[in-house]
Amino acid sequence: MDEQKALMEAFDRTEVRLAGHGARDVAVLKEALAEVEDTLTADLYGTGAVIEDFQAEMAGVLGKECSVFFPSGTMAQQIALRIWSDRKGSRSVAYHPLCHLEIHEQDGLKELHHLEPLLLADADRLITLEDVQNMQPGVACLLLELPQREIGGQLPEYAELEAISAYCRKQGIMLHLDGARLFEVLPYYGKTAAEVCGLFDSVYVSFYKGIGGIAGAILAGSREFTEESKIWKRRHGGDLISLYPYIVPARHYYRQRIGAMAGYYEQAKELAAMFNSCHKVSTVPEVPVSNMFHIHFALSREQLAPVLIQVYQETGIGLTPRLKETGDTSCYYELNIGDVYSGVSKPALREAFRLLDERLKQL
Amino acid sequence: MDEQKALMEAFDRTEVRLAGHGARDVAVLKEALAEVEDTLTADLYGTGAVIEDFQAEMAGVLGKECSVFFPSGTMAQQIALRIWSDRKGSRSVAYHPLCHLEIHEQDGLKELHHLEPLLLADADRLITLEDVQNMQPGVACLLLELPQREIGGQLPEYAELEAISAYCRKQGIMLHLDGARLFEVLPYYGKTAAEVCGLFDSVYVSFYKGIGGIAGAILAGSREFTEESKIWKRRHGGDLISLYPYIVPARHYYRQRIGAMAGYYEQAKELAAMFNSCHKVSTVPEVPVSNMFHIHFALSREQLAPVLIQVYQETGIGLTPRLKETGDTSCYYELNIGDVYSGVSKPALREAFRLLDERLKQL
Repeated sequence: MDEQKALMEAFDRTEVRLAGHGARDVAVLKEALAEVEDTLTADLYGTGAVIEDFQAEMAGVLGKECSVFFPSGTMAQQIALRIWSDRKGSRSVAYHPLCHLEIHEQDGLKELHHLEPLLLADADRLITLEDVQNMQPGVACLLLELPQREIGGQLPEYAELEAISAYCRKQGIMLHLDGARLFEVLPYYGKTAAEVCGLFDSVYVSFYKGIGGIAGAILAGSREFTEESKIWKRRHGGDLISLYPYIVPARHYYRQRIGAMAGYYEQAKELAAMFNSCHKVSTVPEVPVSNMFHIHFALSREQLAPVLIQVYQETGIGLTPRLKETGDTSCYYELNIGDVYSGVSKPALREAFRLLDERLKQL
Repeated sequence: MDEQKALMEAFDRTEVRLAGHGARDVAVLKEALAEVEDTLTADLYGTGAVIEDFQAEMAGVLGKECSVFFPSGTMAQQIALRIWSDRKGSRSVAYHPLCHLEIHEQDGLKELHHLEPLLLADADRLITLEDVQNMQPGVACLLLELPQREIGGQLPEYAELEAISAYCRKQGIMLHLDGARLFEVLPYYGKTAAEVCGLFDSVYVSFYKGIGGIAGAILAGSREFTEESKIWKRRHGGDLISLYPYIVPARHYYRQRIGAMAGYYEQAKELAAMFNSCHKVSTVPEVPVSNMFHIHFALSREQLAPVLIQVYQETGIGLTPRLKETGDTSCYYELNIGDVYSGVSKPALREAFRLLDERLKQL
């Protein structure tokens, strides 16, 4: 772990970063609050203009009858699957092996809701129509994540998504969208959020990924579905007396950045090409379909870290504070394009990649 | 319901209020944020100075090894009871019939954790040592709420609390404190928070009742207990990427108001005496033991509302926006003393009570 610590320290000393929207600090909240009046009344247990107006706005954006603001996507998605499971009278739900619910939630879905997930597809590839057609009978709900974050943000072709949706409708399988990064894939699909969400019975979107808010999520669907979700929201302890400290930033940064997603996507493609031009480096996807991708190195973390540290020190450009090992001679990290990338000097960036490639070539 | 609507409208037009800390609006958050630097780094999934320092501070205040910040008390308390239930291998937990978990949480404890609550005591009185001694065997955990909010904020005598604690220790029954309003009862007990919490194995306190923050709770206990609570916090969807929008106000208003609790308590006694001097009015408790009490009227809501509306209109003092019916000829409301009471003109208040009593006498 020593090389991880050294890498993080070298990254912390860099002045230029490629990913994200900038520091996650209190200024993010203060900026959003500056645009609202001091006298704006707090929401009260899910009621009041500040929450109701935003829920109505997002229902419109997502093309659903209603939506509910949740403190977290973890809470929203467990609840969505629980509602569909109860509706169908089956504990079986299906999702990708690297679904957030499977690997990041301490098994809340199983421990709290006693649902039984069926893992579809191999961990390193997308769920296909064939996977769905071959599911065991009795699955109440299929969750699809667009893009599939843990494999670099890959996406099915839109026609395949439509075919999966049509198949589920025909079979009476409820289809839920993990749209944590939905807004980020709309430029690639060339679709509106409402068009994509039209393929699904319920939808979750996040406000602190590409949007860059503080925290919080929207769960959208029919009125009957969202009303039931509010009961579960209270049971989970998510019906806070006031959620406006997350809602106000969600609204502020949604408006500020929703129009920037196409630019992030173009910049991701540009930056991925620069990585792919280096020896021992490849991105997944090779050509990004959103603002994100993974950067894989055919080197151990021990071999790579000193190279990156040298690049950081000589160019002042920080690529990543940490690397994840995937084997004895491979490691990777995830990159999300946000506001800061457009401020990076292109000549400096080219020089950083020239240096990176030169050093990688020697290994 | 017409008289309720009229009462609320009349209340909304008053300029002077007796209860609370003032409007629940965005200014509350802005005031707390004004004292922290823009560059203060956000907490990240339970790590970082902003959350860790506050948790350490509150562990110290409550005299426990560790504490964890939760978005809500609903989440914190279900989790506390679940941990003790698992530890003891029993689903049986005991609490008051008007416990928050029983009446305000859509049965989350039962639906998510499958715990089986045993209701102790009658709804209109406190749990006694005798109730606890007569519990069926096998109860994993007893929850006591100090003060018992739904019956006006009543409290057991401290000696009885000590006796209940000693009995539970001897019997191996875990004792959990619902201390949503713990800070508010310390002046009556003449004890520190740590002294009271020393009688309990786990403790929850809230930051938006007497403290007047936005939302959020602390759950405190041994390190083993709080570490387990963090796993459940993630399962519930409460391990938000950042909780600082609640933590910064919790810290700010804790420091601002913790020293004011004794004053609120004295003012509550003063105000309760004024209510009790009126015909057809009695408070529960008759002499408050915290900043709160309930005001009961031996009148129907239909009879009382026009009287209150007249008082509001003639004096500009608003007592309550709503009344809860308890029978055909009885209703009540809850009052919590906060910062605003000290700004109320005493002559104007005496005039309001003179008018109130005069009109009540005629009914």
